[in-house]
Amino acid sequence: MYNMDRLYEAVAERGPVCVGLDTAPGYVPPGERRRAGSDAEAVLAFNRAIVDATADRAACFKVQIAYYEAMGIPGLRAYARTLSYIRGRGSLVIADIKRGDIADTAGQYAKAHFEGDFEADFVTLSPYMGMDSLEPWLAYAGRGKGAFVLVRTSNRGMRDFEYLELADSAAGTGGPRDPADKGGARRLYHAVGGRLAELAGSLGGRYGYGAFGAVLGCTERDEAAAIRSRYGNLFFLIPGYGAQGGAAEDAALLLREGNGGVVNASRSILKAWTGKAAGKGSAADAETVDHAFAAEAAREAAGAMRDAIRKAAAEQNLM
Amino acid sequence: MYNMDRLYEAVAERGPVCVGLDTAPGYVPPGERRRAGSDAEAVLAFNRAIVDATADRAACFKVQIAYYEAMGIPGLRAYARTLSYIRGRGSLVIADIKRGDIADTAGQYAKAHFEGDFEADFVTLSPYMGMDSLEPWLAYAGRGKGAFVLVRTSNRGMRDFEYLELADSAAGTGGPRDPADKGGARRLYHAVGGRLAELAGSLGGRYGYGAFGAVLGCTERDEAAAIRSRYGNLFFLIPGYGAQGGAAEDAALLLREGNGGVVNASRSILKAWTGKAAGKGSAADAETVDHAFAAEAAREAAGAMRDAIRKAAAEQNLM
Repeated sequence: MYNMDRLYEAVAERGPVCVGLDTAPGYVPPGERRRAGSDAEAVLAFNRAIVDATADRAACFKVQIAYYEAMGIPGLRAYARTLSYIRGRGSLVIADIKRGDIADTAGQYAKAHFEGDFEADFVTLSPYMGMDSLEPWLAYAGRGKGAFVLVRTSNRGMRDFEYLELADSAAGTGGPRDPADKGGARRLYHAVGGRLAELAGSLGGRYGYGAFGAVLGCTERDEAAAIRSRYGNLFFLIPGYGAQGGAAEDAALLLREGNGGVVNASRSILKAWTGKAAGKGSAADAETVDHAFAAEAAREAAGAMRDAIRKAAAEQNLM
Repeated sequence: MYNMDRLYEAVAERGPVCVGLDTAPGYVPPGERRRAGSDAEAVLAFNRAIVDATADRAACFKVQIAYYEAMGIPGLRAYARTLSYIRGRGSLVIADIKRGDIADTAGQYAKAHFEGDFEADFVTLSPYMGMDSLEPWLAYAGRGKGAFVLVRTSNRGMRDFEYLELADSAAGTGGPRDPADKGGARRLYHAVGGRLAELAGSLGGRYGYGAFGAVLGCTERDEAAAIRSRYGNLFFLIPGYGAQGGAAEDAALLLREGNGGVVNASRSILKAWTGKAAGKGSAADAETVDHAFAAEAAREAAGAMRDAIRKAAAEQNLM
């Protein structure tokens, strides 16, 4: 059974929220941060509290390794311990690492992130160097491991390259056009998505989605329905919700009957305590916020996000 | 002064070889590996011997982080100590990390690799997500830091996406066509290279090359001269030499009067001891190989590579 099948079941049971642990030390309540021995320890303790509070309202967690690399060796120790804490609880975790390199090197990266200190259930990958850069990762599908490959991201720079229109000679790459977008431009991200859909077809799981999926931002509403139908067998990791401008309606359009993807939110969950503390009436209150208070705020935020996406998905299915 | 200017001067003085420390534990002579306390320690000791032996015949070093991530926390400690050893000697080091992410995250990665435990002089970056993913790295140009962004790599998968032909509507991206390739196809990697050339123009150093350069593989000889003339202000990091099929002539075509780029070789230098040991006449000799023997073989290999590329560059300039 692929981890992607487990993820499908988790979404069916607990909804499509992916809690992003992009935990900058500044997100930790200041009193707790001060009491911790180091920023890395503060982040780890905060992460554990957030995981405990949100695990039954989230499909999975995503840990952005950059925030931990930025703290050096102690940061990477906190990263490793965050991953093992999540997996030890029986929850699924995506290592957001966006690696991409030639095959020999990709083999080393795959060993790094699918085994040992940094073992995760899924990784994110960058496709720029081509399909051979994905092959060493595929070798781990037999152990259940999965990946989400960048297709169309949610940042404004997405238009620089991902969105470039391909010549007709290159447009056939990655299988036939979808009838739904006949006559539309064929862009780089379509070529990437097409190749991934082929790959997912060869690694098909029990719910119609392959072991490898795609990163698809939810910031371009007018294309979302076409994308969902074009890449029917790709499970999506959906960034861009909240702080980056995507709404529940945008995210729901990239789902199919409320499944087939997970929607990531990081800051709006991790920093939910700041809004809740402000509600208490005084700036000084931020000093009294502890992990338990922050975790409760995160739990509420994750629940509200789950409910909003489920509601939007249900309304879209009625239309 | 940019590190890219220092790199130009290093090439002028010591030639264009970049020694790639993609050090798998299996590259360490078996006796030394056994005597070391761990694979990570074995790799670190081996790296130090290679650095000492080749520093006066190489422009710089490149450390491929994947090989260290694969050893977990101890591996990353060996990575950090390899970087600091190289920089402590006054040599330049490229962190081959190929990171690429949205701006907030890229800022964390930049902090991780331009400061602290993992501080390097240069990094490699992946452009898929667009130019905003490069901006946080640019902020470090004021401290001299530089980067090489993937443009056209040396692996066979390069043709999957980097090589895709763009539609005319997208072909203008990244400045005017070079007259030299009038009528030729405009490919994704040209769009990336064009945007980088603009960027390099705004961060120009004292030798005509910008603080940010490009990764350009030397495996496509028929395009090399056109690429060198098209991207005149981009300093190149050139992979693909040796094990990946590129020859001295191919690499020299991407240089300009023997400078303007560094040519990476990893296995052919790190594992030069295996050929030298076999020359001693007996398979059992591999057991007696120590770091000193391996370092001397690496020194000979780096010197021979430097001489071959300089000779090819000199011959091309006479043509």
